[in-house]
Amino acid sequence: MDQLIVIKIGGNIIDDVERLENFLQMFAAIPQHKILIHGGGKLATKIATDLGIESKYIDGRRITDATTIDIVTMVYAGLINKKIVATLQKFKCNAIGLTGADANLIPASKREVKDIDYGFVGDIKTENINAAFINNLLQIGTTPVIAPITHNSEGQLLNTNADTIAQSIAVAMTKQYEVSLIYTFEKNGVLLNINDETTVIKNINFESYLPLKKIDPKTNTAIIFEGMIPKLNNAFDATKHGVKKVVIGKAEQLTELIAGTKGTTIQYE
Amino acid sequence: MDQLIVIKIGGNIIDDVERLENFLQMFAAIPQHKILIHGGGKLATKIATDLGIESKYIDGRRITDATTIDIVTMVYAGLINKKIVATLQKFKCNAIGLTGADANLIPASKREVKDIDYGFVGDIKTENINAAFINNLLQIGTTPVIAPITHNSEGQLLNTNADTIAQSIAVAMTKQYEVSLIYTFEKNGVLLNINDETTVIKNINFESYLPLKKIDPKTNTAIIFEGMIPKLNNAFDATKHGVKKVVIGKAEQLTELIAGTKGTTIQYE
Repeated sequence: MDQLIVIKIGGNIIDDVERLENFLQMFAAIPQHKILIHGGGKLATKIATDLGIESKYIDGRRITDATTIDIVTMVYAGLINKKIVATLQKFKCNAIGLTGADANLIPASKREVKDIDYGFVGDIKTENINAAFINNLLQIGTTPVIAPITHNSEGQLLNTNADTIAQSIAVAMTKQYEVSLIYTFEKNGVLLNINDETTVIKNINFESYLPLKKIDPKTNTAIIFEGMIPKLNNAFDATKHGVKKVVIGKAEQLTELIAGTKGTTIQYE
Repeated sequence: MDQLIVIKIGGNIIDDVERLENFLQMFAAIPQHKILIHGGGKLATKIATDLGIESKYIDGRRITDATTIDIVTMVYAGLINKKIVATLQKFKCNAIGLTGADANLIPASKREVKDIDYGFVGDIKTENINAAFINNLLQIGTTPVIAPITHNSEGQLLNTNADTIAQSIAVAMTKQYEVSLIYTFEKNGVLLNINDETTVIKNINFESYLPLKKIDPKTNTAIIFEGMIPKLNNAFDATKHGVKKVVIGKAEQLTELIAGTKGTTIQYE
């Protein structure tokens, strides 16, 4: 089986032209098949503010109304996606920028309204990912660069979490590839002590994960801090469904994350 | 040889949600292989104005400075392109939205500064179009939807005229397909009398074209009005380089334009 590396980059690196360029140069040099999924960064919020549109949040979660989906489509699928593609082309990586609407790559359904109406937010299912099309792109030597926009197959674009897209695509491709999934973020990896970047936990499996997220009744805290838990649940979910390993670490250390010499490696067993 | 229809839509239909939707429904129903190239409409200018950025013109031509290329990339490659793709997906047309940077589809070079610096404007050559990639997309049943953004292969996105892109792609595909090129605009076709929509010239060949564009010294006008001449030169250039026919007419009459029962058909001989 050919190897495939699915990499997700977050907002903080997208907002920094120089760091992004350095990252993309490393990404372009990866010899294996690869896919890049990017988030949005602060640019969408900045442009919305410049246009006099206020971002709406409920319980800290952004509400995607009709104006917001237009803005994130412009910024994520237009500006950010195409700048990444053009930069990768400069580094001789034959990138192709896509959303989930293109070639029906990621059909989604608008999140049902229960307590909160999140607006134009799309929930996705791994079995609906158009893996055949992604495989075609990889086989002809192109590298998909995916913006976190999906569609409901009825003409409506939707906003979907980039971590979730990365996980779904990684799992969907395991039938044809040996898949590694890399989540880059601002820290060196999963830390034993959140305030000490030298305390990276090198390996986590499902057995060692449980005590790490157990809350100590004395301090009312767990070793793994709260924001990390959805990321790790996501990672374990991927490994449970055929992804060989998930690595979490700093974007600047991409080459080492792929080699497994930096960051935290998550495997099921 | 399989048939391929390359269709260009202009700004006036893009600015009108209902007309665009009707057009895309007709487009989706075309049984032949097809490619859509779209312009930008007034939305980019509107968003630039809302962001407090003034559009610059020299001799009536827009100057694409660094801010403008960001805005047209957002609006053309992001908002307009992805809305078209999502709408075509609704109509069961497996559209894929692309710029010239994606898969290195349309490499360009920044226009040289002579009298005027047009800024980030890309000139293209037919022989550089990535026809093999377009052919791959068509063969697997996807329909390319192309925004008028190209790149210089060194990381810079460029603004390129959509008519020119349509013509270059049509010519580039003639090695593998019998290609028709359709330019839609706001009139019924090329008119004998520009003020009378019933005076559509049904057929023009190179021989009949010359007297039509000859200026009458008495009135100092020609039968074909000035704005039409670059479009017709473009059309003849396409037919000279292997495109079977070019049809010019109203977007609302797309089905009839393809059938050849409406609009003006241009053939070399």
